[in-house]
Amino acid sequence: MKKIHLLSLILFLAHISFAQEITELKWWNPAKSEFPVIAGQAWPQQEKTIYHRLPERAEEKLREAVWRLSKQSAGLSIRFRSNANNIRVKYKLKGAIAMPHMPATGVSGLDLYGKTKDGEWFRPWGTYRIDSISSYNFKVDVNVASYIKNGTEFQLFLPLYNEVDHLEIGVEEEFFFEALPLRIEKPIVAYGTSICQGACASRPGMAWTNILERKLQWPVINLGFSGNGRLEPALIDLMTEIDAKVYILDCLPNLTPERDDTYKLAVEAVKKLKGKRPEVPVILTAHLGFSDDFTNQNNNSKTIKLNKDLGRAFDALKAEGFTKVYLLQKEDLGFVDAMFVDNIHPNDHGMLQYATVYEKLIRDIWNKL
Amino acid sequence: MKKIHLLSLILFLAHISFAQEITELKWWNPAKSEFPVIAGQAWPQQEKTIYHRLPERAEEKLREAVWRLSKQSAGLSIRFRSNANNIRVKYKLKGAIAMPHMPATGVSGLDLYGKTKDGEWFRPWGTYRIDSISSYNFKVDVNVASYIKNGTEFQLFLPLYNEVDHLEIGVEEEFFFEALPLRIEKPIVAYGTSICQGACASRPGMAWTNILERKLQWPVINLGFSGNGRLEPALIDLMTEIDAKVYILDCLPNLTPERDDTYKLAVEAVKKLKGKRPEVPVILTAHLGFSDDFTNQNNNSKTIKLNKDLGRAFDALKAEGFTKVYLLQKEDLGFVDAMFVDNIHPNDHGMLQYATVYEKLIRDIWNKL
Repeated sequence: MKKIHLLSLILFLAHISFAQEITELKWWNPAKSEFPVIAGQAWPQQEKTIYHRLPERAEEKLREAVWRLSKQSAGLSIRFRSNANNIRVKYKLKGAIAMPHMPATGVSGLDLYGKTKDGEWFRPWGTYRIDSISSYNFKVDVNVASYIKNGTEFQLFLPLYNEVDHLEIGVEEEFFFEALPLRIEKPIVAYGTSICQGACASRPGMAWTNILERKLQWPVINLGFSGNGRLEPALIDLMTEIDAKVYILDCLPNLTPERDDTYKLAVEAVKKLKGKRPEVPVILTAHLGFSDDFTNQNNNSKTIKLNKDLGRAFDALKAEGFTKVYLLQKEDLGFVDAMFVDNIHPNDHGMLQYATVYEKLIRDIWNKL
Repeated sequence: MKKIHLLSLILFLAHISFAQEITELKWWNPAKSEFPVIAGQAWPQQEKTIYHRLPERAEEKLREAVWRLSKQSAGLSIRFRSNANNIRVKYKLKGAIAMPHMPATGVSGLDLYGKTKDGEWFRPWGTYRIDSISSYNFKVDVNVASYIKNGTEFQLFLPLYNEVDHLEIGVEEEFFFEALPLRIEKPIVAYGTSICQGACASRPGMAWTNILERKLQWPVINLGFSGNGRLEPALIDLMTEIDAKVYILDCLPNLTPERDDTYKLAVEAVKKLKGKRPEVPVILTAHLGFSDDFTNQNNNSKTIKLNKDLGRAFDALKAEGFTKVYLLQKEDLGFVDAMFVDNIHPNDHGMLQYATVYEKLIRDIWNKL
């Protein structure tokens, strides 16, 4: 750990000395915005703090683990327009900054994306420091007349596995900065496991829900709860409150044949969602498989069992006449060894695969609607 | 950092309690092998310790930074045959276990690959603990008669950014374990930067040199030195000692137009290599580009300048009649934003891209030889 601390210190000193050189900054605190500005939330202004993912009232209905994880800012982002040369963010975190198989940049870091005048995404970079008090300085030194004059739309993705306590964005006085209101498109809502929450992306922008949001240019709500995405009725109840464009149920890696009745959980979840929102497409996602299926017979048989039960649920729902229900099978996900960090969590390559598969299916569904 | 320590403790306790259950283990220490067993070294038995990458005599000829980095075990691996149900490794490290943008699994972790009876790679997984004293327990619970009877070939990839002090591999008494000698194929030798050393792969197997080794099933020597791959004559001199199958010079991300004469360094490096080994193909690799080229004009112009100088060097060498010299251009590398962790280091997706591009070029070269 020494090296991290040393590097933090160096970056901190660099930051300090840099901060002294620059002109006065105007800082903006999203918590003080007059209108909701945190994208990726289904219940804006009902959260206990603006960096949580679930409404405060959900606490008593959920298991403690789910509630705790819902405080982590996976899938949340802040949209704004600016023409600044440097976009600075200072923020405080409440949790651990890294995990053994996921770097600080993914667990606790930020990721900034902007749009070119042709609508393509670009990703500024600069200096950063991730610790209990963290900061990024994104450099946007572009010699593009339209940017200098009009700025562009930015999206700042928040940490995947940490709780944001406080955050401010700063630009130099001479540039403009304008927070953007939430988009009004009905969101895609993804309920899932650690994979959905973002483990083990190397940075927030590489979590599959965030990649999907950029690919489709469509809002995505991340309801991924590490180790705790279990198709629970209480969470499904909350989902029915969301006037969604698509529901994704991607919980199988957190289900256990010995404990959970996957068939029943899936059937009841879909019936509940369809009961309230019959027209909203629902995607049932199979277990992606373990990378060590070949050398771990338990994992192999577990995957087979879970996916068989999900298949039965899908068939039963179709037989009962439910429409717009889709099954994303293990083969569709197409995971290979190079897409995993350990035996279950995607690396960035796997995250891109996940997002690409979802993008294709969702575009197909939308084209047919 | 608290979470890492807590997790380490839990894994440690799990490890201890697990260790008590299992039967007696027989441990093998590669340092005590009667024949060289560390693959990925060009100078076996000339290293100060068997986990270094350069011969001891090189210390006085190299800058201190290069020498220090050469002690890190990037690209090194241990090959063995076994039919064990569990393959345990305990090891001690000398350096920091993680970096802000690269997890402990990549910096300091291990990666085990085996071969199916059809010659395909598989990757066992299990439990692990990475700290100053680290351990992995790879589970190989396969119900394959040929494995139980004959075992198979394994390759254990060592940490990318740490120095191994001590390592032992253990299997239970009832299984066999046999270290494999070094392969006699002439190696592919890659001299480069942090990207070549393996930053920021999520695990050792995803460093591009290690992916390339598996793809081609051919030995690759990793001479990547983080921040210090500068096409230096002293290092090129060492390379000429290696009877290589291909030389790769991939140093541009560590060159600086203000300090380094890329044209001259590249021309002299190739002349030196060709002077000693005229028939060995040499690949000159361009700068892959920064992911923030668009928002950082300095980075953009730096890449253009470096690549232009390398292109001139390539043209000059061709004009002088040198053959089997190849230029891998920025466009060939084909990097896009989703392949980067920060603005220069590949994530696993980028590492796979890098390896795939090299694989194709090297197969093309070999097909023409």
